Amino acid sequence: MKPFMDADFLLSTPTAKALFAACKDEPIFDWHCHLQPKEIYENKTPSHITELWLGGDHYKWRGMRGCGISEKYITGDASAYEKFKAYASALPQMPGNPLYHWTHLELQRYFGITETLSPKTADAIWENCNAQIAAGGFTPRELIEKSNVACVCTTDDPADTLEYHRLIAADETFKCKVLPAFRPDKALGIDLPAFLPWLASLEKTAGTEIKTYAKLKEVLLSRIEVFAECGCRATDHAFTWVPFERANEETLEGIFAAAINGETLTRQQSDAYRTELFRFLAKEYHARGWGCEIHIGAMRNNNTPKFRTLGPDTGYDSIDDYNIAENLSRLLDSLETDGCLPKTVLFTLNPKDNYVLGSMLGNFQSDEIGSKVQFGTAWWFNDNIDGMREQIKALGNLGVIGKFIGMVTDSRSFLSYPRHEYFRRIVCEFLGNLVESGQYPADMETLEAMVKAISFGNAAAYFGLSV
Amino acid sequence: MKPFMDADFLLSTPTAKALFAACKDEPIFDWHCHLQPKEIYENKTPSHITELWLGGDHYKWRGMRGCGISEKYITGDASAYEKFKAYASALPQMPGNPLYHWTHLELQRYFGITETLSPKTADAIWENCNAQIAAGGFTPRELIEKSNVACVCTTDDPADTLEYHRLIAADETFKCKVLPAFRPDKALGIDLPAFLPWLASLEKTAGTEIKTYAKLKEVLLSRIEVFAECGCRATDHAFTWVPFERANEETLEGIFAAAINGETLTRQQSDAYRTELFRFLAKEYHARGWGCEIHIGAMRNNNTPKFRTLGPDTGYDSIDDYNIAENLSRLLDSLETDGCLPKTVLFTLNPKDNYVLGSMLGNFQSDEIGSKVQFGTAWWFNDNIDGMREQIKALGNLGVIGKFIGMVTDSRSFLSYPRHEYFRRIVCEFLGNLVESGQYPADMETLEAMVKAISFGNAAAYFGLSV
Amino acid sequence: MKPFMDADFLLSTPTAKALFAACKDEPIFDWHCHLQPKEIYENKTPSHITELWLGGDHYKWRGMRGCGISEKYITGDASAYEKFKAYASALPQMPGNPLYHWTHLELQRYFGITETLSPKTADAIWENCNAQIAAGGFTPRELIEKSNVACVCTTDDPADTLEYHRLIAADETFKCKVLPAFRPDKALGIDLPAFLPWLASLEKTAGTEIKTYAKLKEVLLSRIEVFAECGCRATDHAFTWVPFERANEETLEGIFAAAINGETLTRQQSDAYRTELFRFLAKEYHARGWGCEIHIGAMRNNNTPKFRTLGPDTGYDSIDDYNIAENLSRLLDSLETDGCLPKTVLFTLNPKDNYVLGSMLGNFQSDEIGSKVQFGTAWWFNDNIDGMREQIKALGNLGVIGKFIGMVTDSRSFLSYPRHEYFRRIVCEFLGNLVESGQYPADMETLEAMVKAISFGNAAAYFGLSV
Repeated sequence: MKPFMDADFLLSTPTAKALFAACKDEPIFDWHCHLQPKEIYENKTPSHITELWLGGDHYKWRGMRGCGISEKYITGDASAYEKFKAYASALPQMPGNPLYHWTHLELQRYFGITETLSPKTADAIWENCNAQIAAGGFTPRELIEKSNVACVCTTDDPADTLEYHRLIAADETFKCKVLPAFRPDKALGIDLPAFLPWLASLEKTAGTEIKTYAKLKEVLLSRIEVFAECGCRATDHAFTWVPFERANEETLEGIFAAAINGETLTRQQSDAYRTELFRFLAKEYHARGWGCEIHIGAMRNNNTPKFRTLGPDTGYDSIDDYNIAENLSRLLDSLETDGCLPKTVLFTLNPKDNYVLGSMLGNFQSDEIGSKVQFGTAWWFNDNIDGMREQIKALGNLGVIGKFIGMVTDSRSFLSYPRHEYFRRIVCEFLGNLVESGQYPADMETLEAMVKAISFGNAAAYFGLSV
Repeated sequence: MKPFMDADFLLSTPTAKALFAACKDEPIFDWHCHLQPKEIYENKTPSHITELWLGGDHYKWRGMRGCGISEKYITGDASAYEKFKAYASALPQMPGNPLYHWTHLELQRYFGITETLSPKTADAIWENCNAQIAAGGFTPRELIEKSNVACVCTTDDPADTLEYHRLIAADETFKCKVLPAFRPDKALGIDLPAFLPWLASLEKTAGTEIKTYAKLKEVLLSRIEVFAECGCRATDHAFTWVPFERANEETLEGIFAAAINGETLTRQQSDAYRTELFRFLAKEYHARGWGCEIHIGAMRNNNTPKFRTLGPDTGYDSIDDYNIAENLSRLLDSLETDGCLPKTVLFTLNPKDNYVLGSMLGNFQSDEIGSKVQFGTAWWFNDNIDGMREQIKALGNLGVIGKFIGMVTDSRSFLSYPRHEYFRRIVCEFLGNLVESGQYPADMETLEAMVKAISFGNAAAYFGLSV
Repeated sequence: MKPFMDADFLLSTPTAKALFAACKDEPIFDWHCHLQPKEIYENKTPSHITELWLGGDHYKWRGMRGCGISEKYITGDASAYEKFKAYASALPQMPGNPLYHWTHLELQRYFGITETLSPKTADAIWENCNAQIAAGGFTPRELIEKSNVACVCTTDDPADTLEYHRLIAADETFKCKVLPAFRPDKALGIDLPAFLPWLASLEKTAGTEIKTYAKLKEVLLSRIEVFAECGCRATDHAFTWVPFERANEETLEGIFAAAINGETLTRQQSDAYRTELFRFLAKEYHARGWGCEIHIGAMRNNNTPKFRTLGPDTGYDSIDDYNIAENLSRLLDSLETDGCLPKTVLFTLNPKDNYVLGSMLGNFQSDEIGSKVQFGTAWWFNDNIDGMREQIKALGNLGVIGKFIGMVTDSRSFLSYPRHEYFRRIVCEFLGNLVESGQYPADMETLEAMVKAISFGNAAAYFGLSV
């Protein structure tokens, strides 16, 4: 029996262990996350382990809800201690869930605690963690530096002023780069209730009225310039389904006018707007060498009563199952045909589409960079051992693992960096198994360079990170 | 080499073996099956092994047809001996098929036969089985009791009088509970040829005319009360696709009137009727604490000539592939919003939807009970080692294994209970592998309680079975 | 550590090794490939390894493009040596990709080279291979005979004169049968730009005008007769989606007239034409006992600029994701109902449909032959270890492995026959694991006969190959 989560966790062969030794100290480039720049700038010491763990982590909330725990102990008015105890009671019921590993990786790496969390150990771990937090070393910046993070890309709306990015950049004592990533989902969501309020916020940030589609594009372009000044290298788009409906400028002006007049759009109209505005933006990304992330397949806010009381991003999202192949192909092809397809990272939340995406890549590669179109790492509900293995297998079968840009945390938590370690272990185990089973030669020089590149170098080159 | 199907079948580690030892003697609660209460009541001794094995088992029929065996030897007029020999000739061609294991589990557990069935052994096994059957101990009730079954839920139409359930309940010598489960598929199938004949049968059972939608609901409610009196705790619904089309009572009355006038309904009309009648029923289930099973994705009666000659449930069904995520989410959310979502068990016949369902659960959990919304065990075409492993992995990654309500046979055969043993072995092997590979601690107290709960206790608590 | 790709490649158990020993010398019946009969007839010695490997293999091209290699070194004007070196630089970046294994199987089996291809070894391997090629033994016929190939079925348009098939058949010195397979995709593609040019080519071959749908059917029937005279036993159809739209002859004449007048057809019209012409052809296949292959789910020519410069089949295809279950079922059922469903082999490019197809088979089996409806082996983007394992697992769970007709290369390369060996190893490993883990008895007589049958005999019987 292998000991529980020891130094060789997830590494079952000598080759896997050697490969992990080669890459474990590579820095982290977390090119997609949901950290708040304001929190990084303010750099406050957390009050207790409950704040760090349960303050906003909807993965843990879902796990607790699945155990039948009352919302009082999740997002409600129970005490921090009671919430921690509730989580400790839930966790042992979740063998096979990544929460089990994330929790213990965080206890091991940040607190030096190797006990397992359970009702029996909860009080001791509660006291130990809180004493360490009080003793210092657990501010956002300290956690980031302790985790050997070279750069994080946050996820920012075009209307964001980026003031905290500027403040962080101005502080030379903090070595980790905190770059904005351009996420214009609200700009594309013309059919959603949030569109007009968002438009007002963009008008405010830009200091100008936006009454036409042409003006919107002009303002978004100016925001892209501002993001570029702040070092932006990545953009992000969430598509529940993939739109592809071409339209000319006149039609688009009509759609935009209808939207700002509060009219209800047809699906064809909103798809046309999404398609063409995305195409406009993608050309700008291409011109700047930015990476364009596309996250497909999240179905959000499925529980109406909870959305009303708790708002979005509280653990009520799940996996959608639209057919995506044809529209995605046409959308990318329309940019390729215009000579301005940006570097693109395709993510799917529905693992049934792993082979659709993995084979789509090959249609649009170029000599701009190795694997210009990437198959993004296993994401959200797939961000677990099985999901990562399946993504890596699909990429291996269909593409070029050696050019893979690897892992992101996609997280809101400053304790989530061990997920990069988790990912590296899984990559090393995968490659180790190929070698040990006679499927790839024991060429350690090539393989060690490869796992290092997947851990850091490929992503740095892809996004043009100068380190 | 591991011996063929010995005591450690499917158990490859010491932890897996220890866990199986802990749960193997738990009773069976088979909360979804297709046994006939009449047969349980009448309790006849079968004539021979062919009657037990090949009388109505369309799994075996499909396997035989796949071997090119003539229908004469499957459902035709060949002798029982000839049919048995035909099956014995087919079985060795099916490595990797669950029939291979089910057949030998049944030979081992009920007949003490450890030989493998093949053309060479067929005659000896034919004689041995038939001699044992003739010697007694193979009536439905004897098989149920021999299998340590605490309770079975049959699958019953609202028009069913439940007379055999009453007769069985009145017989104190039979300890296993035989409860009805409410399956109103024919009530929901307003667009199908069977609807009007079914309505007539319901009128007859209820002793009243049903000329309006309001009256239909009234009668169905009265049937729910009758089912409740007979101890019903579970309901079942088969959805080929998931409907979601809201409509008011006036519209529904119009649709119902059209249907009883023999008019052809639009898809929108039948979806509206299905949506709202399901919602009506679900609220009643919720009020009574019943579990609501939803089976998604079976495409039935695909072979028209065989449907004409053999009828339904004869092995001509397969897996459908509708997109289900959005409608299923909205249907459940509409009940959640009204405060009356029942305990719900989601089953998919298409394994591509494992992650859609596994992530859907988390949107609707509550503190009524642990994992109020369940991901149902691998079903029908997935009811095999791979299917069960994939379902368990998905549930593990996305939900709470410790709260899983586990296995059902979904069977028409009194010999099918070893499938619960098969499932338990697979669960124990899965958890054993997590422990042996250092992914979960060797906390045997927690794990043994968990496998016992998955084997029996969770389902008993979920459906409110008093034992 | 297992040595890299040695004699026991992919065989990890004694049972797997024994089974592979039993089947490895079975001849090859490659019943679906894209070899050019003209090349077999002309039988030229290739100029160098680059011609053999990179002349037309879009798998390798995609791999190179994924590494960021310029098109100059792929399909461009770089020298053969430069292209070879470019491929050698790309290959080590592709652990987990079948190209890695195919390349080394070909080096080992045809050239006796056991070194691994990399930038370091590229020059030596370049020289070694080219010297061997120059020394002789590498013409198409020599490679086919060296590979123990009993028969290949090429893929031929109805308008093809089959002159090279006749010439090859007339040459008694060449023992391998080279049979045409009837692929009327262009006849079915009434809505595509290629339709009218194709119709003209058919008119030319047939020496008659085709102005009506009735005449088209008459001419196609005459071509079927010609194919039959040349020994045709198989047909092939590519469906991006599966059509099912019934129409009568009058409607079909109208659709055909519209098409030859250059009118744009509706999707309903082209689906009706496809459905009914396919049904017409399928009845003819059934009458002749031909096998009907259906390849579902390829999305072709996704990159418009590359399609314009390089044309089709150059590596810009990927996996589509239409819903297929209902139409496929109805299409097959319409033939079954008419009593003329041919032997049918269902292939999917999207592995999400493995269980849809695997369960579809069982709806239409008969006593004409074991597994009359077959689940085709893992194809194209699934033609790798994982894809083959998943297909075999699905077939095992849902059907009858013992009746499986096994592997095809689907290849344009005369060096691709080791893929049959690759497949056989995977089958033997799969069955070996069942035995070694106690899931199937160690009945080597049955199992050895089974792996031989899957390797050759089942397909020979299925297609009626007389050998």
